[in-house]
Amino acid sequence: MSYYDDMIQMSGELRNIERSLSLLAWDERTYMPEGALRGRAEMKGILSKMHQKILTSSKMEKCINELNKSKFLDKLDTVQRAAVREMTRNFERNHNIPDELIERIVKAASEGQAVWTKARKASDFSMFIDALETNVELRKEAAEYIGYENEPYDALLDDYEPGLTAVRVNSIFKPMKKKLAVLVDDISSKEQPDDPFNGKTFDIEVQKRICSRIAEDIGFDFNHGRLDDSVHPFTVGMDYDVRITNRYNESDLSSIFSLLHESGHGMYEQSIDQNLFGTPVGKALSMSYHESQSRMWENFVGRSRNFMDYLYPLIIDEFPKLGEMDPDVLYRTVNRVQPSYIRVEADEITYNLHIALRFDIELALFRDEITPAETEAVWQDKMEEYLGLRPDDPAQGVLQDIHWSSGAFGYFPSYALGNLYAAQIFDSILTDIPSLYEDISKGKFSKLGTWLKENIHQHGKIHLPEEMTKKLTGETLDFKYYHEYVKDKYSDIYQF
Amino acid sequence: MSYYDDMIQMSGELRNIERSLSLLAWDERTYMPEGALRGRAEMKGILSKMHQKILTSSKMEKCINELNKSKFLDKLDTVQRAAVREMTRNFERNHNIPDELIERIVKAASEGQAVWTKARKASDFSMFIDALETNVELRKEAAEYIGYENEPYDALLDDYEPGLTAVRVNSIFKPMKKKLAVLVDDISSKEQPDDPFNGKTFDIEVQKRICSRIAEDIGFDFNHGRLDDSVHPFTVGMDYDVRITNRYNESDLSSIFSLLHESGHGMYEQSIDQNLFGTPVGKALSMSYHESQSRMWENFVGRSRNFMDYLYPLIIDEFPKLGEMDPDVLYRTVNRVQPSYIRVEADEITYNLHIALRFDIELALFRDEITPAETEAVWQDKMEEYLGLRPDDPAQGVLQDIHWSSGAFGYFPSYALGNLYAAQIFDSILTDIPSLYEDISKGKFSKLGTWLKENIHQHGKIHLPEEMTKKLTGETLDFKYYHEYVKDKYSDIYQF
Repeated sequence: MSYYDDMIQMSGELRNIERSLSLLAWDERTYMPEGALRGRAEMKGILSKMHQKILTSSKMEKCINELNKSKFLDKLDTVQRAAVREMTRNFERNHNIPDELIERIVKAASEGQAVWTKARKASDFSMFIDALETNVELRKEAAEYIGYENEPYDALLDDYEPGLTAVRVNSIFKPMKKKLAVLVDDISSKEQPDDPFNGKTFDIEVQKRICSRIAEDIGFDFNHGRLDDSVHPFTVGMDYDVRITNRYNESDLSSIFSLLHESGHGMYEQSIDQNLFGTPVGKALSMSYHESQSRMWENFVGRSRNFMDYLYPLIIDEFPKLGEMDPDVLYRTVNRVQPSYIRVEADEITYNLHIALRFDIELALFRDEITPAETEAVWQDKMEEYLGLRPDDPAQGVLQDIHWSSGAFGYFPSYALGNLYAAQIFDSILTDIPSLYEDISKGKFSKLGTWLKENIHQHGKIHLPEEMTKKLTGETLDFKYYHEYVKDKYSDIYQF
Repeated sequence: MSYYDDMIQMSGELRNIERSLSLLAWDERTYMPEGALRGRAEMKGILSKMHQKILTSSKMEKCINELNKSKFLDKLDTVQRAAVREMTRNFERNHNIPDELIERIVKAASEGQAVWTKARKASDFSMFIDALETNVELRKEAAEYIGYENEPYDALLDDYEPGLTAVRVNSIFKPMKKKLAVLVDDISSKEQPDDPFNGKTFDIEVQKRICSRIAEDIGFDFNHGRLDDSVHPFTVGMDYDVRITNRYNESDLSSIFSLLHESGHGMYEQSIDQNLFGTPVGKALSMSYHESQSRMWENFVGRSRNFMDYLYPLIIDEFPKLGEMDPDVLYRTVNRVQPSYIRVEADEITYNLHIALRFDIELALFRDEITPAETEAVWQDKMEEYLGLRPDDPAQGVLQDIHWSSGAFGYFPSYALGNLYAAQIFDSILTDIPSLYEDISKGKFSKLGTWLKENIHQHGKIHLPEEMTKKLTGETLDFKYYHEYVKDKYSDIYQF
């Protein structure tokens, strides 16, 4: 079966180039000296070029064409057929895009980020309009080469979540927006709990010690991973080597939740079956599924009342000055709901509204319903509509996220879908592991880790997201689980 | 001139793959988690394969064949001609070697290192004999494909120092061995100075602070570089990004000298003309020249009496308990000469005898005058002959260095040649910069840095080593400079 072997061999080459690019990216954001940026761009450029060359080679085309014929396909087992499906998908998404367009996209992304950094610093959206326009136009152009059924934006969504469409996202987000707005209203009439962290400082070395301990306790494998510092927390997966990063503020303990978030990503990467490494299915299912794992550990586990029983002694031991708190106070403190300008600082309820706003704008841009120049005003209007806040400072509004500056349109929905997936899957897990919350109180996380590994992680990309969701929960993605979860939780906390 | 442009483009691709491999190597020895080794080997394998593919491609062959015709060559300037010469050399050293031999070499190197680690730990040379034999045989085989004029070993020497031959090394090492032995004898009859470091401990964080300060003072550019920890100090150059590492013992201040050594390597890499980056001449001249720079900073500068005037206040400030010393005592302490078993701990005089011993054995192996199994006995005999010591423990003898386990034969001579080059070049520098030693006392190193940059570093590989030596010193490499240097220095210290 030499076509299949050839495809797997090329897949291994591609994966090893990806691993190298991942190490470059990790290094760039952790240890790289500033003056190295120019050489780094060249390195990434050459490796990406070699990747594209192998992926779109005539040898690859031949393998894929042959393997998709039933005389070959019928002889393959489930995993092999999934491998052919994924490689075909990769090939088809990429082989039509002209090299010169890729070069323009890479250049616009790099320039866009530089312009965005300046515009954000100057709090001046007008400085960013041209770069935004260029990036939108280039992605529209790319969408034509990638192909789509209904509309160009779908070609971009599909990159992060195979098969996802704007229509589908809208059908989920519309009721979500309405129902979350009701909850925001319910809570806004209630009194906010005191913030016992207010005015205190927390030694960063001690925070790091606590975070390492938690990562170890929940199952992050330091023999195949690392935890480092970076300005924005992130995870890179290189199969046998998975690296997470975290940041620390002296004024709060938010580092614990970003640690849980990145560990969730990291443990997903670490639990993929090693036999799949290097094959087209040796990766996580989709961006939304990845996010479901990080948000599950951060919120469904980490912000649960039971987690406070585990966490409280850990932090009181290191920060005795928090002694006046008890686990209940800690629970309410880490679950404050309050509309705010910044997505990455948002609570569980308002977070998804931040995402809905971004999705609305992206879709309107790609449907030519608004122009890039109008984006700031639309942002302000939507913020007011969804969260009752109107950002005058674009650095606190339309310029807060890096994504658009590099043309990463279609990415944002994954964040909210991840939350929704997490709720729906967690519901199934609670049925399978009735002792889960008790275990969490005791700092025992291994049953949950094993469940996630056996049911999701180890299978890589063998199944498609929809298929996996049905397998795990008996139905396709539905907002009702998330809705139930936040309603129950916050009506209890805020007493409504 | 499209052949030249094509060659330069391929050279840039090769260099960017090399940079990526360098980052992988740096990471492997600094931050990589242990369990990542397997994936790392695959990554290196794929990148090396792509490197070999471009280097030996038919496109490269065509470019080189055409560019070496006088109708093209005559139109090129000096730098371009040097670029063609270097790329031709690279191509010719590599294009005949069959892929399967490269695979066997890589495999034997990796297995050899694993076996060596175990054998060294067990202090059992017999465990290592087979691996040594395999590595020798594979390199002999490779030498036939690489080509040589006189004997196979020359093909390996030439890899580290273009044009170097065994006959030439012998003609330098023979008088060197005799004259250094006389000095060792002279000193061994004298009393050793007290060691004021003995029994003291030196906080490692403080040592790191001192080392960073020194690196900065002598001119290492932290905007284009880093200093990290590793088990064995090393330097990797990635053009815009040059990283050095260091190790620290609590019981002494040897970290200062390994810092000077690696900074010497690092500053060479940092001072190559950026316009040459990515071209075949955008690298250091040779391994020996590289070593001349590290040893110059470590010994000719760092172990000079004048450097003590700069260093003394720096370390007394941090370690007041050394207050009973004065710069003279410090000078004698860091210049103790004493035959010892371990190369990397050897002083300036005995160091070269350690190298001569290794060269003798390598040459005998490649001339089939001894078998790998006899190596331990020959080592013991030669140690006794050159240094008056007979190691019973092979971990202190024939198994101490990693080089042979990965087949790096022909590398060792560069260390001694580096010392000799350093002496000869330093002699010229002292003529050009009469105030050099006074400057060193004051901690002013920029004139020296500028001299090295302007006369050596920035030129990359434009000149051949012999040519460069003549340009700098008026003659080819001659042991007499080193001999004068150590004779003067140590007859003063040891009063003979």
